[in-house]
Amino acid sequence: MKPYAFGIDIGGTTVKIGLFETEGNLLEKWEIPTRVEGNGNRIIPDIADAVNGKMQERKMQSEDVQGIGIGVPGPVLNESIVNRCVNLGWGIVDVAKEMSRLTGIENAAAGNDANVAALGEMWKGAGKGHENVVMITLGTGVGGGIILNGKIVSGIHGAAGEIGHIKVSDDEKLSCGCGKKGHLEQYASATGIVRKAKEILENTAQDSVLCHKDEITAKDVFDAARDGDEPAAEAVRFACRMLGQAMAHIADVMDPEVFVIGGGVSRAGEILLNGVKKYYRETVFHASENTEIALAECGNDAGIYGAVKMILP
Amino acid sequence: MKPYAFGIDIGGTTVKIGLFETEGNLLEKWEIPTRVEGNGNRIIPDIADAVNGKMQERKMQSEDVQGIGIGVPGPVLNESIVNRCVNLGWGIVDVAKEMSRLTGIENAAAGNDANVAALGEMWKGAGKGHENVVMITLGTGVGGGIILNGKIVSGIHGAAGEIGHIKVSDDEKLSCGCGKKGHLEQYASATGIVRKAKEILENTAQDSVLCHKDEITAKDVFDAARDGDEPAAEAVRFACRMLGQAMAHIADVMDPEVFVIGGGVSRAGEILLNGVKKYYRETVFHASENTEIALAECGNDAGIYGAVKMILP
Repeated sequence: MKPYAFGIDIGGTTVKIGLFETEGNLLEKWEIPTRVEGNGNRIIPDIADAVNGKMQERKMQSEDVQGIGIGVPGPVLNESIVNRCVNLGWGIVDVAKEMSRLTGIENAAAGNDANVAALGEMWKGAGKGHENVVMITLGTGVGGGIILNGKIVSGIHGAAGEIGHIKVSDDEKLSCGCGKKGHLEQYASATGIVRKAKEILENTAQDSVLCHKDEITAKDVFDAARDGDEPAAEAVRFACRMLGQAMAHIADVMDPEVFVIGGGVSRAGEILLNGVKKYYRETVFHASENTEIALAECGNDAGIYGAVKMILP
Repeated sequence: MKPYAFGIDIGGTTVKIGLFETEGNLLEKWEIPTRVEGNGNRIIPDIADAVNGKMQERKMQSEDVQGIGIGVPGPVLNESIVNRCVNLGWGIVDVAKEMSRLTGIENAAAGNDANVAALGEMWKGAGKGHENVVMITLGTGVGGGIILNGKIVSGIHGAAGEIGHIKVSDDEKLSCGCGKKGHLEQYASATGIVRKAKEILENTAQDSVLCHKDEITAKDVFDAARDGDEPAAEAVRFACRMLGQAMAHIADVMDPEVFVIGGGVSRAGEILLNGVKKYYRETVFHASENTEIALAECGNDAGIYGAVKMILP
């Protein structure tokens, strides 16, 4: 195996780049801005420039590089082609091929960012030692990644692991970002938790510390719940129930070794984890009741770790 | 590759046995009774006798046999060990090892019967030409099998594909066979469809042909619905909604190429298929809306086909 590899995580505002030794050591990481203007047609050349610059700086040849893995915030087919990526302004882009062409690094692979983060957590984080991992990322939205036998499950339309769009409620009146109703993302994302908290506050006579804030964040809701604020606790319970039930659906389908919960909302910690475990166990088929549920450990580096892991054996 | 292979499908009352050429031709199939008495300890020796007898009759040596695959109505670990199989009276039984020992056929593998049937439908039935198939078997209960990249997904506790135990209703008062409430099996199995029809009849003033029967079967419900009987049609719609929603959950997790619906209830045909498609499409993430949904084609032979496929390359 060649000595070096690159892992790239393309986000809507910055691109994270990691230079790794192929044994797995992260040598260096840095960020460049994501230039989405002009249908994002500068993004791949910008990354290639950064990679080529780093190779020059370190006097590396493209022959010294095992490969380059890239996580992208959109669906990816055949580990190469992105089919519409709204956040980056992309239509159909063959990310892997372009990156290869511009860097001279032959072995390139692209994956959906949530899937890639799951691979990163499997390799270096809360999924370490396992090969069957489901990662759920709770941020502005809810993303998911499924790893089976150490490999990303992409699905035939690139839609495997679209956990945020599992329908968990029949009673929803508002639409999810995708256009349908009652999806997990509407309840377990940061936005969803705040929305539910406001709804509870409007329909209760109980006082809450949340009533005395101009702006409520998901963190405020968890903090208040931890301090015994009942309306906030109700909002947290609701999010945990929706998430625990969706995770039970996932286990009834593929029965993984471990669930890893990441993203900004996961910083709520134990109160989230314990709530989710309760509802998961109540709902899931008995054989999977004791499946491990853990908080993510790689933080923002899950993407670059998972990206590089894609091109390692 | 050696010229012959055996595929075995162990059911609660009969064992189906198929002798195959390894190119895939079924040469001969027959059945023997399943002797469940004495904790089912005669079942494997009975099958071995049948296999050994057939080899003698055809003047085959165990060296002429590529392998023997076995479908079992219970969870199977490592393609070999059954851990409790209530219908057969079994505790922990190393099915593959025992079968090898008693027949001299080295290569033996066991799988859960629903998973194995899914493999059979992928190889020779409605999933032909695909490698990512979900099969749902609607019988007395609801079983499922997940095939990814041509291989059975068993799950870490042998509980992958436990589709019948996906929770689809929050309002259920009765318990599922597994002890929990609101599971798909309570609505989309033959038993579940009849139960729902009776519940609808008790709560409606409308007349129905079903009211004039001593005993109602799932077939009666579908037949009446096809003839425009409204209470029966409501029961069918309900079963289709529950099943379509559960299938949407499955697609949101693993995004397969095709769903195959089999088992006795699937003989209802188009009325079932069209109903399920409607609710599936309403619920699933948009990228997977046009996933193929088909009726099973192998009938009772899915088990022996899938069993033999397990030990073929």
